[in-house]
Parts: sequence; C-alpha cells; structure tokens
Amino acid sequence: MDYKNAGVDIAAGNEVVRRIKGLARATFTPGVLSEIGSFGGLFHLGDRGLRDPVLVSSADGVGTKLRVAFMSGIHNTIGADLVNHCVNDILVQGAQPLFFLDYLATGRLDPDVAVQVVEGLARACRENGCALLGGETAEMPGFYAEGEYDVAGFIVGAVERGRLIDGRRIVAGDVLIGLPSSGLHTNGYSLARTIVFDRLRLGVHDRVPELGATVADALLATHRSYLPIIRPLLDDDRIKGMAHITGGGITDNLPRVLPAGTHAIVRNGSWDVPPIFRWLERSGAVPRDDMLRTFNMGIGLILVVSSNDADDVIGALRGGGESGARVIGTIAPASAGAAPAVRYEG
Amino acid sequence: MDYKNAGVDIAAGNEVVRRIKGLARATFTPGVLSEIGSFGGLFHLGDRGLRDPVLVSSADGVGTKLRVAFMSGIHNTIGADLVNHCVNDILVQGAQPLFFLDYLATGRLDPDVAVQVVEGLARACRENGCALLGGETAEMPGFYAEGEYDVAGFIVGAVERGRLIDGRRIVAGDVLIGLPSSGLHTNGYSLARTIVFDRLRLGVHDRVPELGATVADALLATHRSYLPIIRPLLDDDRIKGMAHITGGGITDNLPRVLPAGTHAIVRNGSWDVPPIFRWLERSGAVPRDDMLRTFNMGIGLILVVSSNDADDVIGALRGGGESGARVIGTIAPASAGAAPAVRYEG
Repeated sequence: MDYKNAGVDIAAGNEVVRRIKGLARATFTPGVLSEIGSFGGLFHLGDRGLRDPVLVSSADGVGTKLRVAFMSGIHNTIGADLVNHCVNDILVQGAQPLFFLDYLATGRLDPDVAVQVVEGLARACRENGCALLGGETAEMPGFYAEGEYDVAGFIVGAVERGRLIDGRRIVAGDVLIGLPSSGLHTNGYSLARTIVFDRLRLGVHDRVPELGATVADALLATHRSYLPIIRPLLDDDRIKGMAHITGGGITDNLPRVLPAGTHAIVRNGSWDVPPIFRWLERSGAVPRDDMLRTFNMGIGLILVVSSNDADDVIGALRGGGESGARVIGTIAPASAGAAPAVRYEG
Repeated sequence: MDYKNAGVDIAAGNEVVRRIKGLARATFTPGVLSEIGSFGGLFHLGDRGLRDPVLVSSADGVGTKLRVAFMSGIHNTIGADLVNHCVNDILVQGAQPLFFLDYLATGRLDPDVAVQVVEGLARACRENGCALLGGETAEMPGFYAEGEYDVAGFIVGAVERGRLIDGRRIVAGDVLIGLPSSGLHTNGYSLARTIVFDRLRLGVHDRVPELGATVADALLATHRSYLPIIRPLLDDDRIKGMAHITGGGITDNLPRVLPAGTHAIVRNGSWDVPPIFRWLERSGAVPRDDMLRTFNMGIGLILVVSSNDADDVIGALRGGGESGARVIGTIAPASAGAAPAVRYEG
C-alpha cells in the first residue's frame, strides 16, 4: 500500500508545481526575494516611499461561481475573479497590493485544470502589479466531486498610515459615487444558479436574447479590479470612504464604512441596473430587497466624498476612462442610537 | 425565490461572524489596527526592533486529517493544526508570526461547528503570539458533503533581513539535529486513513493497544508549533538551515534547504520511530521508502548547524525542555551535478 493507492498522486503534484513556477515567476516584482518552493514566500517592502506602512490583508474565495466554471469547462478566469476581488477588498482602505497566495484544493488533481486556474491568478496578479508569492495545491481524495475544486486567495498590501481610508471623516451631506460593476462579480451565484439552471432549466451554452450572450459568458464575466481607476485618487485625501459591493450587496457593504450617527440614502434609478440583474429578478421573481442584499445590481464600488469634491472626483474618474461613474446618493444623519444602514429612496 | 431558498443562510453567517469576533479579538496583538469585519485587516509592524524587515508568508491546509475530525465530531483541534503548521513553515526561514487569516468553506453552515474550528485557530494564534486578523467563511451549497468543510490558512511573519535562514551557509560536515514530532502532524492522512479505516476496519473510537489510545486521539494529536523552543535560537546565527517535515517527509523536505553540491545523510536508528508510524507501516505493509516520503516518522523539524555548534545547540534545546533533540545525520558533498537529496544509512 502506498500514497498513490490512497488516492494521492505525488507525480501529478510535482508536475503542477513545476508548471506553476514559471507562471508565478512572471508576476514577481522587485520586492520578491524567494522562489516558489521555499517554505515561505519572502517579500521585502523596499523603497516604495512608505515612511510608516500599514499592512492590509484579506482572504476570500469565489463562492459558487466555480460551479459555472465546472459546467462550462472554463477554468482560466476564476483566478482573475479571485485576485481582483482581493485587490478591491484592500483597495477600499487605500492599500495597493504587494503579494498574493492561493489555496487550491481538489479531490483528484488534474494538472491541466490546476494550471489553468493558476494562469488566471497569475494574469490578474500581473495586471495589478501584485506578486503571486506562493500557494498550496492540495489533493484531498473524497473531499471534492470529480472535476471539482475550491480555490481561496489571500492578499497583502500596504498603505501609508496617514493615507488609510477608513470612513472616519464621513459626515452628513457627503455624496456617494458609484462605479459600474462588470457583472455579478463573485456574489449571488447560489441564487443566480438556482434561477438559471433549476428554474429556467438553461444550459451554460444556451444563448440568452436579453443579454446578447450565452449563460456561461454572462455568468463568468470577470470580477473587475478597481485599482487602475482608483490608484490616481489615492494620493489625495478626497476619498473619505470606499465600499466594495460584495456578498450582501450595497445594503450590507456600504454600512461597513459608515461612522456612527450616519446612514446612507441610495437613490433608486440613479443608475441603470444592467440587463443581467433585471433578467434574474424577473425570471426568479426575486423581491427587490433580496436583489439588493444579494447582488451588486450594477454598482461594484462606492466612494464617499464631500459634496464639494464630487464633481472633481467624477471628472477625474471619467477622465481616467470610467464613463459610468455617477452620484447615486448621499449621507444623512441617523436617528440617535441607530446603527449605520442604507435606505433606498425614489 | 431568495438566497435562503438557494441554500445560503445569511442569518447563520451573521451569527458565526458575531461569535468569531470575540475569539479573534482575544488574539489581537499591539500591531492590529482594525476590527474583524472591515474589508481588510490592518496590521502595523510598529516597534519590533526590525530595521530592515522581510515579510515571510505561507498558505496551507490540513489535508484529509479533516476527515478524522468529521468522523469523531471533534472540530476544535484542526484549527490549531493549521496555525501551527503555518507558524512552522515561516519559522524555518527565521520568521516570527505577525498575523493569520483563515478560509473556511462548507456546504451548509453549522454555526457551532464553524465556531469550534475558529476556537482552535484562535487558541493556537494566541499561543504563538499571532493575531487572527481576518478570514472568510463561505457557504457553498453542494460543494461539500453534509457535515464536511475545508479550511485553509494564510500566515504573515517577519524576519530581520540579516537574520534570514535560507540554508546558503550549509557545507559538508554540518550536522542535522532532529526535533520530535507530536504525531502525524498534518501529513499522510490519505494513506493513514486507508490503512486504519479501510484495511483494519477500525472505528475512530476503537482503542489501539499498541498506541494506548483511541484511533481518534492518535490521529488527531495536534501538530505542534516549534516556535517556543526555536525562538531563543533565532537571535544568533548558529542555525544555518531548517526544514519543516511536512508532506513528502524528510525525503522531500530536507533537500528544499540544501545548497547545490550538498546532500544529507540521515542515520536510520538515530531516533526512535514512534509507535504510530511503526503500527501504520506494519498494518499497511507500507515499504519503508514510502513511509519516509509520506510521514514525518517522528521528526517534525530538522536544524542544520556546524558540527562545532551541535553540542551547544542541543544543550540549548534540551535546556528549553526539548529532551528529544538529537543528531540524526550529517551533510556530505554531492557528486557533481546531482541535485540535493537525502540518503538513509545504517
């Protein structure tokens, strides 16, 4: 009896490690001091002009968007979803990414699939200037169904302490600026899949006329990174707070950055809800409140700025190519003792 | 149709987050600037006496040791296995832990189980002086069997650049010092489970006379952290290299820290192989080579030191309470062009 009989293929694992090394090396930035394969990945902050750096770190997965990858056999975009999700999660506190590590677990290791997943990770890491510093590929017989896997990501970035964005300066009268999402991003997939595959009984390759796309194309649209458009704004202090609209939608995520004594008023109709959300809402007969607590509804990032700065910031965003940036609401005083929350109006 | 109908229980998720917050807060060290629940966890290196810090990071899981936790219903030790594994993985490069994040994924979220897992994480984080800075709890309907989950960990530590341990100074004539493991640690479980549950047809609560313990107790013994015993030695430069004996055993892990032109000679019989490994070897009729490439065989950490320093280092380790520290081999010159490897002799 040996390890292979027990369902663990060391040769397949070694092949994956070998093929991953080249992908990871192509993401290495000057801070990386180690090679993939050492026990820990080594990173040196070096000369980034940070006098008093704060490390900002986040862990995440892509949820059941993975199921759409399995159904369609498209494995090289999920990694980008994961990296961009993590990049956005630390960006909202003002941090720029330094390095990323992944955890990829499967029941029986298929080297080609594993490498495709890492290709997506590596591509997005490169695009975000983030080193893919290491990771773990685990073969766990019996834990995952044939052809399935789970993937988690872990990011570390840094921000100058005085440039931390934490919502503390937000006051009533401030303005909410919404930036368009690129689709469902990585949230709401359990509900979306139930509607699309169970209720509508569509296949991944079916074309949806309302969307002008196949189910796979619509549901696998990559979670975008807001780093390129936001980075130029991190050098001034006009952004008082930022919320990444992930699981829980605007309803649950925007209050995470609001200080006590405030709440947010989001104006319905201030942006066009993209067709995919309207299609899911209608097809699933999903109450609007549930839609807003489950999906991003077309707004993937919200900035809170002073009303005096709103025009300038929107101008800067549009000048940077973000034509969909727009005011979607305001900050109002909360009644005494009430926790920060979102009210939808209009 | 709403999210709960689709298999995602937001209320259960919120309950877990609420209960985890207190556990995590109890691990917070002075460097932590954020509360659990912010998008990213904030950590400030602060005044640790590091003039030129290098960050050392690692990602890992606990493999199919999880299956033993499921079978026995004991969920509050797996987290300690994971944290200690990660702590050791960066310790071997000289780093002390700063913070840890977890990813916990399950098909249907059971708040009590999730909290038990995090209790184990938090306890080990506290013991290692490592902040549990954040994490992600994912409910993924259909991805995991009822009652099952996967958990991954990510650690970041730091080491003064001049104190990095990377094996570079290792030369022929150096000595290998082995430190005892506390059991299987987190590797070889697919093979161990096949032997114990499929071949011997034992249950987790069965008592194994050779081990003086139940199957569950023997297989769930916690992966120990070597930080307390090694930390006092990090301040001098006698440790030239360290290998954490994880998946692949001594055979695959020791060469990871050996420079070109060297190989390791490990003397069979220089330590007592603990009963659990002998029992697995005999019960599974596993060839010795496979045992050595799969399990730690009783040696969880190997230090490489100059032969002149060996007695002093062993004395220091024994003085620190590590009575099992002993010389288990030496470094020899490799034949030209040969990759570093381990040869077992005697």
